[in-house]
Amino acid sequence: MRLLTRLLAPKSVAHAHCDLPCGVYDPAQAMIEAQSVKAIAEKYAANEDPAFRARAILIKEQRSELVKHHLWVLWTDYFKPPHFEKYPQLHTLFNEATKLAGAGGTKGSVDVETADKLLAKIEEISKIFWETKQS
Amino acid sequence: MRLLTRLLAPKSVAHAHCDLPCGVYDPAQAMIEAQSVKAIAEKYAANEDPAFRARAILIKEQRSELVKHHLWVLWTDYFKPPHFEKYPQLHTLFNEATKLAGAGGTKGSVDVETADKLLAKIEEISKIFWETKQS
Amino acid sequence: MRLLTRLLAPKSVAHAHCDLPCGVYDPAQAMIEAQSVKAIAEKYAANEDPAFRARAILIKEQRSELVKHHLWVLWTDYFKPPHFEKYPQLHTLFNEATKLAGAGGTKGSVDVETADKLLAKIEEISKIFWETKQS
Amino acid sequence: MRLLTRLLAPKSVAHAHCDLPCGVYDPAQAMIEAQSVKAIAEKYAANEDPAFRARAILIKEQRSELVKHHLWVLWTDYFKPPHFEKYPQLHTLFNEATKLAGAGGTKGSVDVETADKLLAKIEEISKIFWETKQS
Amino acid sequence: MRLLTRLLAPKSVAHAHCDLPCGVYDPAQAMIEAQSVKAIAEKYAANEDPAFRARAILIKEQRSELVKHHLWVLWTDYFKPPHFEKYPQLHTLFNEATKLAGAGGTKGSVDVETADKLLAKIEEISKIFWETKQS
Amino acid sequence: MRLLTRLLAPKSVAHAHCDLPCGVYDPAQAMIEAQSVKAIAEKYAANEDPAFRARAILIKEQRSELVKHHLWVLWTDYFKPPHFEKYPQLHTLFNEATKLAGAGGTKGSVDVETADKLLAKIEEISKIFWETKQS
Repeated sequence: MRLLTRLLAPKSVAHAHCDLPCGVYDPAQAMIEAQSVKAIAEKYAANEDPAFRARAILIKEQRSELVKHHLWVLWTDYFKPPHFEKYPQLHTLFNEATKLAGAGGTKGSVDVETADKLLAKIEEISKIFWETKQS
Repeated sequence: MRLLTRLLAPKSVAHAHCDLPCGVYDPAQAMIEAQSVKAIAEKYAANEDPAFRARAILIKEQRSELVKHHLWVLWTDYFKPPHFEKYPQLHTLFNEATKLAGAGGTKGSVDVETADKLLAKIEEISKIFWETKQS
Repeated sequence: MRLLTRLLAPKSVAHAHCDLPCGVYDPAQAMIEAQSVKAIAEKYAANEDPAFRARAILIKEQRSELVKHHLWVLWTDYFKPPHFEKYPQLHTLFNEATKLAGAGGTKGSVDVETADKLLAKIEEISKIFWETKQS
Repeated sequence: MRLLTRLLAPKSVAHAHCDLPCGVYDPAQAMIEAQSVKAIAEKYAANEDPAFRARAILIKEQRSELVKHHLWVLWTDYFKPPHFEKYPQLHTLFNEATKLAGAGGTKGSVDVETADKLLAKIEEISKIFWETKQS
Repeated sequence: MRLLTRLLAPKSVAHAHCDLPCGVYDPAQAMIEAQSVKAIAEKYAANEDPAFRARAILIKEQRSELVKHHLWVLWTDYFKPPHFEKYPQLHTLFNEATKLAGAGGTKGSVDVETADKLLAKIEEISKIFWETKQS
Repeated sequence: MRLLTRLLAPKSVAHAHCDLPCGVYDPAQAMIEAQSVKAIAEKYAANEDPAFRARAILIKEQRSELVKHHLWVLWTDYFKPPHFEKYPQLHTLFNEATKLAGAGGTKGSVDVETADKLLAKIEEISKIFWETKQS
């Protein structure tokens, strides 16, 4: 599939995000970190060694913070007033998604389900993002 | 004055912010960085040395980023659904404030007025914040 | 009270710290992080879940480091030779305060009393700081 | 296209990278930053304002560093001895790619062509990466 | 001895590393962090307090990351194609050394021997580095 | 010479610094960054290209900050009350050295002489440091 994607649109796989702004954004950045958070939660559940678990919690904290950061950047830097008018749920969606990557979400919990909820929320944001890119 | 403050309420000068969460928050963190941004813009206007100006732009970029970060933390970590219900303008206020500390605001501009607009916006947020702390 | 402060001196609540220098400094930055450290120590004592405690230790480490950093900035960037002449105890005060936020203090200990000692030391520094601002 | 990708393989767009290891890697991280570097070079060429250019150089520096970091992580953490045996050019490829994101590449140059060379090199790495994932 | 070194060559004790490039490099940076990693492993073994151990793991993770970073900088920024021709084992040496500072090495292990292996590998790199400086 | 050093004392070239504490400290860390700062100042003087100079100022800022940080760590973490008694000039020495790496020193200036003054000050600290290690 990945190869197919590349054949169909070799120049469009990467989209991002700096505050020059460079004009390049992509929800994949938040998604990649959230996938990592989920994988960490799974490995945490499967390994009871306290040293391993201490490392897992530490890295999960960092990766969750990166999820928050990438989402904040999209919310502040990419999305503009017309988007918020067209998608009135956007503010709440971002607020809930970043909360899900915080103390009440994947930072504070080692449950895989919490990571899944975060991933689903980012997927919702991603869907809206790509709709706005097409119009 | 500062002494007076301390006499009146010695335990309340410091409020913050970590995602344990420690439960300590204070808009002063964003405000301090924004004051710094304004002072940098003023010094930039008063000094035409290119090496100084390169430094000023670099530091203004970092301080503006810190403003964004401190505001994002308040928006995601401190404010809860009941706050957003009571203050329906809060989402827009935070989105505008963080945009004012970005490429379309104090990052992209060396004008003192832009820094003043940012400070005013943070003041609005601060006012709401302290109202929520009293109730 | 916070409102009273603002009514009395609306322009003076925020003071800081960059090395342009912007000329804006405020011991509140160190104080806020130290308050956070204390709150973390309290929550650590109240929660025996190992995953929570691992997070608490990790975040306490970061916040203690921020205390050190903010104090170092005041000591190097704000205080000048005349201050050190007038307050001969200043060097020792800063050295002790930063040690109290390190391995022999709030980094190495989970005791609330250690955090209290750190807060008291910062309060001493803060008192001197505001005296120098008034003269 | 992006929608097509998602329809075909909705769960596989995100791959990454932490050193637990989480086992999730994706060259898209380096690619996104490199795309950003190229967009910055284009905007630099189109805008002669010195304050804008100072910001562009500063951000290009950071983004180039991120390219290097993401590539280093793939080279050290993802690729294993059997990969280096099968693809004997891999070491050189990574060394050249990271050099292209450094002082002799996109850090030291504002040319769009330099960014294009970097992107082409990452594309080569990406192609090998995905081949190793399929086998 | 250290004094002797200084008497013999007072200007040559410090060598490093920025990507201007400043042209100053020194494997001592990686070595210092690796020595720290080893000392942490030794203290970890000698202290069973869980809070201490959580801190040790956290700091060992950071120091190992610094080892990786300093080595990557040498590999990409200091060493040039003629070096890789003359020392064909260099790529593998760096790849193995950085892996030894990662999940399969000093990040993932608390064994002192693992830290010793890392130190030995850096010593090999250091030896080659100083040979290239003399020619 | 370097080889001589290694023959004489192969295990003692690296000393450092983390706040576990690992007990490993070495003024070479500050010295290396300061040497880098000096090399940058020299390259700045020799190259009038504005893009190069913007990069030089940016990197000089970061390296100066690292000098400050490494010195602060020595002052707070390595030196203890008995050292300050024996070397009453130590506080002032560190305060002056860190100021020399700040806005009034190598951050605010592109002069090579300023970097030389910083290097000389670090050399004084280094001399005392090694005396304390021998006793």
